[in-house]
Amino acid sequence: MTDSDNLDLSRRRLLGAVGAAGAAGLVAGAAGGAGISAALSDDTAGAGGAPALSTVGSTAVMFHGKHQAGITTPLQSRGHLVAFDLAPGAGRKEAAALLRRWSATAKVLMAGKAPAEDTGIALDAGPSSLTVTFGFGRTFFDRTGLASRRPAELDPLPAFSADALDPRRSEGDLWVQIGADDALVAFHALRAVQKDAGDAARVRWQMNGFNRSAGATAKPMTARNLMGQVDGTGNPKPTDPDFDRRIFVPAGGAQEWMAGGSYAVVRRIRMLLDDWEKLPLDRQEKVIGRRKSDGAPLTGGSETTELALDKLGPDGKPVIPDNAHSRISAPEQNGGAAMLRRPFSFHDGIGPDGTPDAGLLFVCWQADPLRGFVPVQRKLDRGDALSAFIRHEASGLFAVPGGPAEGEYVGQRLLEA
Amino acid sequence: MTDSDNLDLSRRRLLGAVGAAGAAGLVAGAAGGAGISAALSDDTAGAGGAPALSTVGSTAVMFHGKHQAGITTPLQSRGHLVAFDLAPGAGRKEAAALLRRWSATAKVLMAGKAPAEDTGIALDAGPSSLTVTFGFGRTFFDRTGLASRRPAELDPLPAFSADALDPRRSEGDLWVQIGADDALVAFHALRAVQKDAGDAARVRWQMNGFNRSAGATAKPMTARNLMGQVDGTGNPKPTDPDFDRRIFVPAGGAQEWMAGGSYAVVRRIRMLLDDWEKLPLDRQEKVIGRRKSDGAPLTGGSETTELALDKLGPDGKPVIPDNAHSRISAPEQNGGAAMLRRPFSFHDGIGPDGTPDAGLLFVCWQADPLRGFVPVQRKLDRGDALSAFIRHEASGLFAVPGGPAEGEYVGQRLLEA
Ligand code: HEM
Ligand code: HEM
Repeated sequence: MTDSDNLDLSRRRLLGAVGAAGAAGLVAGAAGGAGISAALSDDTAGAGGAPALSTVGSTAVMFHGKHQAGITTPLQSRGHLVAFDLAPGAGRKEAAALLRRWSATAKVLMAGKAPAEDTGIALDAGPSSLTVTFGFGRTFFDRTGLASRRPAELDPLPAFSADALDPRRSEGDLWVQIGADDALVAFHALRAVQKDAGDAARVRWQMNGFNRSAGATAKPMTARNLMGQVDGTGNPKPTDPDFDRRIFVPAGGAQEWMAGGSYAVVRRIRMLLDDWEKLPLDRQEKVIGRRKSDGAPLTGGSETTELALDKLGPDGKPVIPDNAHSRISAPEQNGGAAMLRRPFSFHDGIGPDGTPDAGLLFVCWQADPLRGFVPVQRKLDRGDALSAFIRHEASGLFAVPGGPAEGEYVGQRLLEA
Repeated sequence: MTDSDNLDLSRRRLLGAVGAAGAAGLVAGAAGGAGISAALSDDTAGAGGAPALSTVGSTAVMFHGKHQAGITTPLQSRGHLVAFDLAPGAGRKEAAALLRRWSATAKVLMAGKAPAEDTGIALDAGPSSLTVTFGFGRTFFDRTGLASRRPAELDPLPAFSADALDPRRSEGDLWVQIGADDALVAFHALRAVQKDAGDAARVRWQMNGFNRSAGATAKPMTARNLMGQVDGTGNPKPTDPDFDRRIFVPAGGAQEWMAGGSYAVVRRIRMLLDDWEKLPLDRQEKVIGRRKSDGAPLTGGSETTELALDKLGPDGKPVIPDNAHSRISAPEQNGGAAMLRRPFSFHDGIGPDGTPDAGLLFVCWQADPLRGFVPVQRKLDRGDALSAFIRHEASGLFAVPGGPAEGEYVGQRLLEA
């Protein structure tokens, strides 16, 4: 069992301060290795007599564990990213109290229960794979007198030539990632997190994202992004022997409080979809180096076949072009640099320039950004064929501590040592 | 069978211009009266051995029929509303060609197939209950030389005292409502509709919305909105004897081309959630006149019990206050005025004033706005306790013609008569 495995759950949603038990009983979700688990039970027969879908709502993710939830948890269909700055005057004490409140709220909500003085937005729904993940930005440490405990990994990312970053939507003292398979469950958690912030912290920026719905495909499949590409194939798998070492901070490092944690790089990457969609299919496929239909390498095989980077076409040129995104970002081209990409798509309507304000809320996880995101993005920035069709608009780098033990709150080892 | 009943579907998603069949086989969805239907089949076993969810994606809604889809279709979890204005120089001919293109696209997409030169965004996913619904705004008729065929029902809505309408996000020559149970399927349809517009029409405004995910609750339940209220209880039911007469335009009226059609009133209603959430539960419940936990009237019973509007409390005052939203909007208080409310929630992050830019994309359907939306909103505008917590920010009124017969396109009876 990994920490983000599904937790069987069979109980009524508690109504907390709203009073009066009213909602329908939830159903135990069978643990499913692929992140989609289904359970049918007599008391969930739909009005039409057909058995109702039940596991979208009934799946719960554990709050406690070695790592925080929301890193290896299967992609959820809704996400909110929100960054906070500590309020003027708030320091270490207020921050510790805030993380304690946030942890208590996250634990209650992830179990599908309602917090005290609940808004009621998620009543009736199950936990719906909700995860709430907390991180610290570089600026957090000075403001709380904890500069000596700031990890070197939080040093600012280098500037990239194609960056068009909006500082008001970048960085922040604190970062919260919310994911759930139901939009109301996710929004409910966002409001609860904002309320908990109280006078201690103010929202700096907030972004909304989404992925495919659970059950939209007949069987679990790799995600697609808004360019229509299969996206996520090359990701390291939790079963890889070196997965933990690459994604999670080992014990015994310079900042022991980060043991079991990970660093999140967040980039709001706008897609220039009007331009992209004008590009013919064969040129779109050369930009990535993979087929659009099924994500297989242009050198043949199926989605999981390795890229044959040396293979030449009849014209004597590499079948997967030199500037193809898959070639440039491949770990074997980057000294083994690896990251776990776990993005949400975003679509905020139409931008002031009349083009879609849509793209990728790129979130990637690694034990060290200098051996994950940075070397890969340096190369992509210089030579990626995709660059003509994307724009990095905002950036954040956050230290996400390990998961809390039973009775602990997230960040306690930083804030109370 | 009503027109929006589920269509059993068992076929492979066609890849259209993307070529090469690659996606997994879809599964027949069992027709389910409650809008959620489930089917499990051997070839959908998830990687973990558990049966996969399959009907979220495999449910298809019929394009042809007496009425357009998207009116009595069960609420979908994602929605896009988009209004277009005809381009300068475009007239009746271009409009007819556009509606022909749009209809062809809607039919293909709603069946879960891919159009020519597909973006690929929805590949792998099933039709996911996609609906695409088309309407005409008041300004459409002058621009196309069809003023004599403009229904009187499209006369401008009266101004309401609390209106704070943004004209740039209101009205429009043409209106398209997209709904689907998968965010990528909905976005895919939005891009296709925008592409079809070509040189004939330009986007005037575009809004995104959502509802609860299929399967988030253990059994089908009435929706909740972002104030946490059960929302939709009082809606007329398609099985009511007078449902058709109230919601759909009868044959033999002044504008025969609208037979089988309906009028959609669209309001972007911002919720002042920071204020609302500070209100104690008992006062929140008095604002509506119903319990928040389960939507039952404050006068007792369950969600479907009638409001006992005359019942007095121990203090001699009506239990459901005089300014309660449910009292003021009840059909028996409005000469039987009835509408079918079929909204999406919206959440566009944080507004410039620092409060959540969230609320209700209120869409209601009726045979005549003067016997539906208008009288009710007149009363709500004057005396609704909810008014202190909402703001009408945009408005649209659209004539949505009947569903196309086999071989016909939407609006053909208007544009080619
Ligand atoms: C909107 C921007 C981006 C899009 C649309 C995009 C799309 C893709 C696609 C379609 C693939 C191939 C399938 C897969 O292995 O997942 C891929 C692979 C990859 N991308 Fe991106 N990507 C984007 C940005 C980035 C960024 C900013 C980075 C990191 C700096 C990155 C790193 C990678 C890596 C490491 C791989 C896997 C390579 C391999 O293992 O073979 N991508 N990307
Ligand atoms: C954000 C704005 C609004 C919210 C949050 C809201 C919420 C509610 C709620 C919770 C109910 C009770 C449950 C139900 O019957 O569905 C209700 C009923 C109703 N509302 Fe609203 N509403 C809003 C705006 C409107 C508007 C603008 C209209 C029309 C002008 C309207 C017309 C109705 C009607 C007709 C009923 C049913 C009354 C009955 O049959 O008993 N509502 N609304």
